[in-house]
Amino acid sequence: MATSALPELTGDVVALTAAVCDIPSVSEDEARLADAIEAALTPLTHLEVLRDGDAVVARTSLGRDRRVVIAGHIDTVPIVSNVPTWREHALDGTEELWGRGTVDMKGGVAVALHLAAVLTEPRWDVTWVFYDHEEVASEANGLGRLVRNHPDWLAGDLAILGEPTAGGIEGGCNGTLRAEVSTAGRTAHSARAWRGVNAIHAAGEILQRLNTYTPRDVDVDGLVYREGMNAVGITGGIASNMIPDRCVVTVNYRFAPSLTPEDAVAHVRQLFDGFDVEVTDLAGGARPGLDDPLVQGFVTAVTGVTGGRPGPKYGWTDVARFAELGVPAVNFGPGDPMLAHADDEHCPVEQIRTCAQALHAWLA
Amino acid sequence: MATSALPELTGDVVALTAAVCDIPSVSEDEARLADAIEAALTPLTHLEVLRDGDAVVARTSLGRDRRVVIAGHIDTVPIVSNVPTWREHALDGTEELWGRGTVDMKGGVAVALHLAAVLTEPRWDVTWVFYDHEEVASEANGLGRLVRNHPDWLAGDLAILGEPTAGGIEGGCNGTLRAEVSTAGRTAHSARAWRGVNAIHAAGEILQRLNTYTPRDVDVDGLVYREGMNAVGITGGIASNMIPDRCVVTVNYRFAPSLTPEDAVAHVRQLFDGFDVEVTDLAGGARPGLDDPLVQGFVTAVTGVTGGRPGPKYGWTDVARFAELGVPAVNFGPGDPMLAHADDEHCPVEQIRTCAQALHAWLA
Repeated sequence: MATSALPELTGDVVALTAAVCDIPSVSEDEARLADAIEAALTPLTHLEVLRDGDAVVARTSLGRDRRVVIAGHIDTVPIVSNVPTWREHALDGTEELWGRGTVDMKGGVAVALHLAAVLTEPRWDVTWVFYDHEEVASEANGLGRLVRNHPDWLAGDLAILGEPTAGGIEGGCNGTLRAEVSTAGRTAHSARAWRGVNAIHAAGEILQRLNTYTPRDVDVDGLVYREGMNAVGITGGIASNMIPDRCVVTVNYRFAPSLTPEDAVAHVRQLFDGFDVEVTDLAGGARPGLDDPLVQGFVTAVTGVTGGRPGPKYGWTDVARFAELGVPAVNFGPGDPMLAHADDEHCPVEQIRTCAQALHAWLA
Repeated sequence: MATSALPELTGDVVALTAAVCDIPSVSEDEARLADAIEAALTPLTHLEVLRDGDAVVARTSLGRDRRVVIAGHIDTVPIVSNVPTWREHALDGTEELWGRGTVDMKGGVAVALHLAAVLTEPRWDVTWVFYDHEEVASEANGLGRLVRNHPDWLAGDLAILGEPTAGGIEGGCNGTLRAEVSTAGRTAHSARAWRGVNAIHAAGEILQRLNTYTPRDVDVDGLVYREGMNAVGITGGIASNMIPDRCVVTVNYRFAPSLTPEDAVAHVRQLFDGFDVEVTDLAGGARPGLDDPLVQGFVTAVTGVTGGRPGPKYGWTDVARFAELGVPAVNFGPGDPMLAHADDEHCPVEQIRTCAQALHAWLA
């Protein structure tokens, strides 16, 4: 029962979430939802509406001295007979909205749409960003495209990404680096192993360094980021009777956002000094910016409504794309992240309302 | 120009080698050559001729107190426009026979056929074995089939396998064991590695034990067998952002023929104590039996003709199938083993004559 127009944005945010979910928008198929969002925002005279592909940006220009960017992706992973959405009551009486996107992350999108309409004179200038292609290859990411095409559209002093955090604040994110650390040997028949040099045996030293490595806990802007240095793959061997001449250990380094990508590469090269190191993937992290009074105000207002304290985000998320622009960023949105992409994706409706209420309390 | 009958066996052994090569007998297609061998041996009244599939066995029964088994496979790897054979002269004037099988191992087969006919009253009783399916999967091996179906046909005090050794004596062979030594862990997202247990890191200890392992040199019947303990493969990893829950190191142990297969398994289990060890391949070695006066006589007679001294065979060969029957075994035949299976397979004709002459000197 998909519809192609959204209800009045200023109405119930849970009904709006359901409506946003009920316009299917699996990655590559976001146009209809993007059109509906653009159509709903364009009449609002306090907003300037911009569009790039299936990304829609709307912003106030009230001359406030600080600007906040509130962003969310509008695409979902594939639907598994879970659109349109429906409501259920859990055993404890909790009312839940079920269906694709209820967690990742049309609740966050609906909260943003609702507040974009309601807050005609927000305390800070706000840029609302709705973007495409988050659930697919990083190169296709709509926010990345905006960073490349229109970095000025994303300018601000703080970015809030509405990804599911179950209503908590998760600041910044760790960076991630992947490298192939390899050894070289010389083949020989395994019946005459002494004529060769065993590259798998040589990789023992790589694993030894990983085993003795102590990952750091790094305080960044008041949040403690736990790093990680791990082999995520190993491969070596030619045939069952051959001494192997090459062994490759794929290492994943999750590094605190206080390190630049270049710092991270240098750290890995130093750790595996003497081995061939090829970096195959590299993305910097994002600082949470919790030392900024603007961000402190956000934290105080939100936790006043939701309770809890901000924590660090360990996984890499799109907040790092704001970091590239020098904008500190946090993740804040309704929904249990463990249910993202799950067939039984669902969200307590109260969490959606609480998130809207908390952001409203800060921005009104 | 394949023919289906062999020339007079008592004639020139090089011409006989060419004739044996010129009857194509790629594995699975040995019947015509087996028929020709059976047809050539059957008229010889000093021999009893037996057949199982495409294996032909001929033996004297002169009541000698010792029996020698002389065996060779009649199949070859695929032909690459190198049948029929031809002769060439190397730059130094050496006359060579070129073509498939000239090295592996129709020279050895021709030497055996020639002597089977010539030696009507050999010094020891002799069993001549010509078998099929050596160049394919071990399960199909014709000698293995004879071991299962007719172990009595292979009974003897010494076996000589006519595989190419360039006219040297290579005694016995090492055994070979393959095992998968594995670690277990617990998966987690690599951004939260502390929630998992990294199975690849755990494999560091396996490689460490391999690195500190000193392979033994083992004297068996007067020959020194060099052992080997090597990783020939390693695999681990689920995805580039996952902590792996399993890592498997494939280890190949080449063990001296003084160890039983059970000894070898126990040794590997002890070395990797604490890890999961699954033996996936196991074949015992073969003792050279050089402490036996019969074998010493063979060595003295042969090296008197060929020069050189016996050495150990490191790779596993069909001599080990005789070891299963308690028969010591050596490899001795014309042709450079490095040219086996090569497109430019060829053998100096003098080496074929020398091998025939050496065996004749011992058996006449």
